Amino acid sequence: MNNNNRGDVKNLSLLGIDDLSQENLHFLLKTAAFFKKEFYKEGRIIHCINHEQTRGLVVQLLFAEPSTRTRASFEVACGKLGIAATSLWNLHFSSMAKGETLEDTLQCLIALKPNIIVLRCGEFKGAESFLRSSPVPVINAGLGAKEHPTQALVDAFTIQEKRGKVEGEKVLIVGDVLHSRVANSNLKLLTRLGAKLGMCTPEELSPVDKQAWKDVVRFESLETGIKWADVIMCLRVQRERHSLRNIGFSMAEYRDKYRIGQEEMEIFRSDGVLLHPGPAVRGVEIANQALNDPRCHIVNQVENGSHVRSAIITLMLNLEIKSQ
Amino acid sequence: MNNNNRGDVKNLSLLGIDDLSQENLHFLLKTAAFFKKEFYKEGRIIHCINHEQTRGLVVQLLFAEPSTRTRASFEVACGKLGIAATSLWNLHFSSMAKGETLEDTLQCLIALKPNIIVLRCGEFKGAESFLRSSPVPVINAGLGAKEHPTQALVDAFTIQEKRGKVEGEKVLIVGDVLHSRVANSNLKLLTRLGAKLGMCTPEELSPVDKQAWKDVVRFESLETGIKWADVIMCLRVQRERHSLRNIGFSMAEYRDKYRIGQEEMEIFRSDGVLLHPGPAVRGVEIANQALNDPRCHIVNQVENGSHVRSAIITLMLNLEIKSQ
Amino acid sequence: MNNNNRGDVKNLSLLGIDDLSQENLHFLLKTAAFFKKEFYKEGRIIHCINHEQTRGLVVQLLFAEPSTRTRASFEVACGKLGIAATSLWNLHFSSMAKGETLEDTLQCLIALKPNIIVLRCGEFKGAESFLRSSPVPVINAGLGAKEHPTQALVDAFTIQEKRGKVEGEKVLIVGDVLHSRVANSNLKLLTRLGAKLGMCTPEELSPVDKQAWKDVVRFESLETGIKWADVIMCLRVQRERHSLRNIGFSMAEYRDKYRIGQEEMEIFRSDGVLLHPGPAVRGVEIANQALNDPRCHIVNQVENGSHVRSAIITLMLNLEIKSQ
Repeated sequence: MNNNNRGDVKNLSLLGIDDLSQENLHFLLKTAAFFKKEFYKEGRIIHCINHEQTRGLVVQLLFAEPSTRTRASFEVACGKLGIAATSLWNLHFSSMAKGETLEDTLQCLIALKPNIIVLRCGEFKGAESFLRSSPVPVINAGLGAKEHPTQALVDAFTIQEKRGKVEGEKVLIVGDVLHSRVANSNLKLLTRLGAKLGMCTPEELSPVDKQAWKDVVRFESLETGIKWADVIMCLRVQRERHSLRNIGFSMAEYRDKYRIGQEEMEIFRSDGVLLHPGPAVRGVEIANQALNDPRCHIVNQVENGSHVRSAIITLMLNLEIKSQ
Repeated sequence: MNNNNRGDVKNLSLLGIDDLSQENLHFLLKTAAFFKKEFYKEGRIIHCINHEQTRGLVVQLLFAEPSTRTRASFEVACGKLGIAATSLWNLHFSSMAKGETLEDTLQCLIALKPNIIVLRCGEFKGAESFLRSSPVPVINAGLGAKEHPTQALVDAFTIQEKRGKVEGEKVLIVGDVLHSRVANSNLKLLTRLGAKLGMCTPEELSPVDKQAWKDVVRFESLETGIKWADVIMCLRVQRERHSLRNIGFSMAEYRDKYRIGQEEMEIFRSDGVLLHPGPAVRGVEIANQALNDPRCHIVNQVENGSHVRSAIITLMLNLEIKSQ
Repeated sequence: MNNNNRGDVKNLSLLGIDDLSQENLHFLLKTAAFFKKEFYKEGRIIHCINHEQTRGLVVQLLFAEPSTRTRASFEVACGKLGIAATSLWNLHFSSMAKGETLEDTLQCLIALKPNIIVLRCGEFKGAESFLRSSPVPVINAGLGAKEHPTQALVDAFTIQEKRGKVEGEKVLIVGDVLHSRVANSNLKLLTRLGAKLGMCTPEELSPVDKQAWKDVVRFESLETGIKWADVIMCLRVQRERHSLRNIGFSMAEYRDKYRIGQEEMEIFRSDGVLLHPGPAVRGVEIANQALNDPRCHIVNQVENGSHVRSAIITLMLNLEIKSQ
């Protein structure tokens, strides 16, 4: 590993995939792989960086929506780098209980001048320009249904790790694309890395921005899509954002047409890769047999999550990587 | 900066402004300014202290009432000094769910021997003597309606920063003085630093302890008060502690007489300073126009909050400041 | 202190007392005493270990049930060792709100590869084999009604500290043994350390596994038990797991037969030791007079909790203790 060729971060914040240059992307994928390899050898990664640089740095997390893996992976990623992580979540116990708005809460955390803010929240009016004006770098850890760039980086890293490359890989996205910030970020990232995208989704849950998705192959039948794919990316049915019934589906119908189960795995290529950004709701969009299949790499995705996020923080804080 | 002339902390804990000597106060204001300047240059302050001293130190926060800026600012302040901060809040998930009292919860945290406890809670019987008996230093981060000394220090620091000095400054406190621990601490602190205090508050929300407030100029009309003032300190209407209706006000009447808005800013001196301890409830005690006015330094107060609290921890743990 | 004779940790995780060898136990009790002594002298313990080893290590806590002292003591113990602790609790704000199971949540935290996981949760099917398969060491911080080994270690340490030894001590367990994971772990630990156990419990709250408890002296009357005992270990009535009424008791009857109060302390030996794992519910299983008695060492137990847990982490991460 060397410290050159990482590229500067164009914009201060990482709000979407477009904030990362091609050089940034390659640095991130290489650095995450380096951290993962070193962690296996040493049980930590602090020796990989100039840790004098991280002493006294603080990352402030603000999670206005529930999370397990994203929040924990950022906290663990910070800890592994020797950076203090402090989290605000469950805003019923914040000053929002006294009438403060989310924007003012965020403004307050920005004013405290942590070294990075990691933000998950619903969309709010003017979010993009508000966040662009922050003097503290903001990492988007899930903003409404817009983007979730760090998860897409985890997915790309996992595809590269398990399939050897991203370029030319055929990735089938299955399920609720409409509400998926993960799908939006993956569309941009995987396309830039040279993958071919397909999707299989009910009309009612297909993306609104037809233009952005115009080069994505649409499969009416899950079977045809799976036979085409090298990688299946299964999405969660976001029941907190809609009810299946309201979109005209019974759970049984949804399962019948879109769930990845035993039968789907049987027609999937033997060296294929099954992904899911998590949390997977067992029995809804994915069956236990698929989760237990050796081609299912959901647990690897989570593991990679901590290393990819350590790499992102390394890039954004411009931490020096130690020569071996 | 040097390490002399900081004064000893008279009492172990910082429960109120009276716990700080004049020497302590000047050390705190100078150290916070030093930290702020260095943070602007370096993006951190750990180089300002002997950080070998902070390794392995732990600050335990106990927040029994909602908070954003005070809790986050202590957590960020600790992180910047390389001190671990660990927080207990939302006591529904503590042993209080099993029938433990707040005092026993606090006794338990004291017994764990962190290096400092930072406490926010409602008043409880015998609080003062209970906290005085703690062998672990306690910092009052808001105790009922009594005192909130660290916020007053933030306010004094901000006045000094924006007005050049505190001595001789005319500070008008507007709103719910009765329930304001911030007002109580500011009365003591600003008076000691030589400011002149005024207040404009409905009779129903004026302080009970008339003796303590006897030297504070009382303004019946907000207009007269604002024309007199160099600094306006707007307080939040603490609707969690009372309802406006119960004290005989409609929201419209309250706004009419006590809200800081466009008109009030127009008659305020052009180099005046508008403060609010936060969270500001937009449209209730303060209008958007006032919040957007360049004389409004509420965001600066929050920023200063982290540096002032780092200075307080530096004083209480007697951390050595590095010569430049 | 030296680094030899600590024994290897037989199994990776600490799920129950049986995971610790006799060598491990003696190392833990000695190391906790060393940490406590050094903390009194220096106000920290980081100088006692090779702190280069702890930089960049992360302990992940998962608390699915309420806790104050266990969670805070692990967080403080980590902080004192210079290890980052990050906590997931209140799972309503985790992905379990989106339909994820506890096992999948746990699997996710394991996948993130912290250096240790500290787990409190209710029993779940296959817990033992699930946790045994974790490649990350898991510390049981209270698993259903099964075991709570770190609390038992705290109790043993406190008995040794206050009575001079554990061997030969007569320890009377009073109250709800049926639901007490603390009692289960103490049965195993104190027996191995040579103590004699007695119990005084309503038939309805006595242990189901009669075989395991067969060598424990059963006292029908609290008075007889107390006259026999050197140590009283009072247990909390776990009203979240049962109601007294359902087991055929009124609160008055329970108090009458099993509460430790003034009268019980009067017949207890003058150099006896009264313990309670906490949280003590004042007036239910224990009266204020007993809590205020000088033989009551509940606060010491909490204090010892941080040092014992620092020792456990030192053992499990094989941290080098510095020669003096």
